[in-house]
Amino acid sequence: MAEVAAPEFRDLERTLEDRRQKVEAALRRLFVTGRARAVEAAAESSLFAPAKRLRPILSLLAAELLRGDPEAVVPAACAVEMVHTASLILDDLPCMDDAATRRGRPSCHVAHGEATAVLAAFALLNRAFEVLAEGWPGGPDAAGRGRAASELARAIGFDGMIAGQSADLATTERVIDFPTLEFIHSRKTGALFTASAAIGAMAARARPSELASVVAYAKNLGLAFQIVDDLIDATGGTAEAGKDVGKDLKKTTFVSFSGVEGARALARELIAASQAALAPFGTRAEPLRELARYVVTRRR
Amino acid sequence: MAEVAAPEFRDLERTLEDRRQKVEAALRRLFVTGRARAVEAAAESSLFAPAKRLRPILSLLAAELLRGDPEAVVPAACAVEMVHTASLILDDLPCMDDAATRRGRPSCHVAHGEATAVLAAFALLNRAFEVLAEGWPGGPDAAGRGRAASELARAIGFDGMIAGQSADLATTERVIDFPTLEFIHSRKTGALFTASAAIGAMAARARPSELASVVAYAKNLGLAFQIVDDLIDATGGTAEAGKDVGKDLKKTTFVSFSGVEGARALARELIAASQAALAPFGTRAEPLRELARYVVTRRR
Repeated sequence: MAEVAAPEFRDLERTLEDRRQKVEAALRRLFVTGRARAVEAAAESSLFAPAKRLRPILSLLAAELLRGDPEAVVPAACAVEMVHTASLILDDLPCMDDAATRRGRPSCHVAHGEATAVLAAFALLNRAFEVLAEGWPGGPDAAGRGRAASELARAIGFDGMIAGQSADLATTERVIDFPTLEFIHSRKTGALFTASAAIGAMAARARPSELASVVAYAKNLGLAFQIVDDLIDATGGTAEAGKDVGKDLKKTTFVSFSGVEGARALARELIAASQAALAPFGTRAEPLRELARYVVTRRR
Repeated sequence: MAEVAAPEFRDLERTLEDRRQKVEAALRRLFVTGRARAVEAAAESSLFAPAKRLRPILSLLAAELLRGDPEAVVPAACAVEMVHTASLILDDLPCMDDAATRRGRPSCHVAHGEATAVLAAFALLNRAFEVLAEGWPGGPDAAGRGRAASELARAIGFDGMIAGQSADLATTERVIDFPTLEFIHSRKTGALFTASAAIGAMAARARPSELASVVAYAKNLGLAFQIVDDLIDATGGTAEAGKDVGKDLKKTTFVSFSGVEGARALARELIAASQAALAPFGTRAEPLRELARYVVTRRR
């Protein structure tokens, strides 16, 4: 999986770093504190731990693909990252995956206590919707922001991330079939990837066919991302992954199901499918194509 | 505190029961399930346990006071109740108050497990914002719904409910002063009462002065409600309260701070202040005045 030419990768790295910095700066602006000191400290340390910011970057690149103003999308993209961070805090709780490390640091409940961690996750979800409700200069109007909030809520909801997490909890230490495994991850990971891309595309006033292409791209990308996560978990170390690894040994993963080579082949297939979905956009989609290559070749 | 004439109380009871039934029916319509069976069952049993629905009723009565269409406000009022239910689920968790009973039933984590309870609370908060984002026939436009979502998010956020809960966790088993006690409860309880009334008033296109009056009413009402809760906790039984009582003995409450008589006097003062805030509305505010009398004389 190292067939990508070096110069293109340097471009992608510059693009990712530039967009990542935009997202970091906006997250700082949008993280408004009040009088909940302990909970704010917990939310802040989780939100500003070193992170790739792939989901908000996906929103920005989707908007750019459709000639939208990426600056006008940044706060909505940050809302997705807040929700993602909230989901990581919950995933790590003792009653869920009971993980001690996340993003290279002690996980939120280890550093701040369980009650404070739960409130921090709740607060980050709340703040995500507050950002969308409040609006920002140059951003979509109230109707557009309402559509973004609907999209985000659907990605989280009873047929989204929460359905994936609920099924995941139900299947721990039980052998599951491939459709169940795909069900779990298309929702735990795929739903927010899809919402990220859709929110970016919608802000750029995507036509229905354009939106469908971008969503198909993101859906395949999200699943490929999860498979690579399973591969890193199965073959890497905690320092590389930045979180507890080996935790998934007792669970069915794409690696335990298909083996390392089988999982790699599946990730490549999904990436090919995600890139094929971008065909209508020609060379304008090159950054998103490279992002897909990056997702499948990354080591953490 | 039983000086209120019987006929008025019968009217209020009819009003409360009528509005409560409207809220129940709308909550049923708005509780849309997906594929997260365990989490949905947990959220459903918490949301539809027998409840007074005081917060959404407050939204409806505030809208009616200002000649707004209460039907157009019902879904927004239900969003507040979803958030309130989510907060109860979290409050009862082992890492928070560790309560075994709520609304006369085993608390959510006792009946459904801790992980599922946390996800149910998260899902209810998410669904509240989804309802506001999606809109409904006869309801406010996207801008109006965005303002309601902002108001709700602010009531929950880092200077709202979460600040109250954060301070409450920090002060357990420590003697606190009166301003801290008031800080905690003005946020844990007061903030959602205030948001309920504001959302109802805003939907009825309240003028700024009208909104300020309704908010002042709700703020005092919320604090009075909490004091009466402390009184019921200190003097009643679990069956009466529908939740664990005596739990607060190790905490500073309005009763431990001021004694039973002192707390009763304070509740009466707050109710008088809440009723005084309604003076500009004359007799149209009679239902809200009676609601205040009910809140201070209730036994559960």
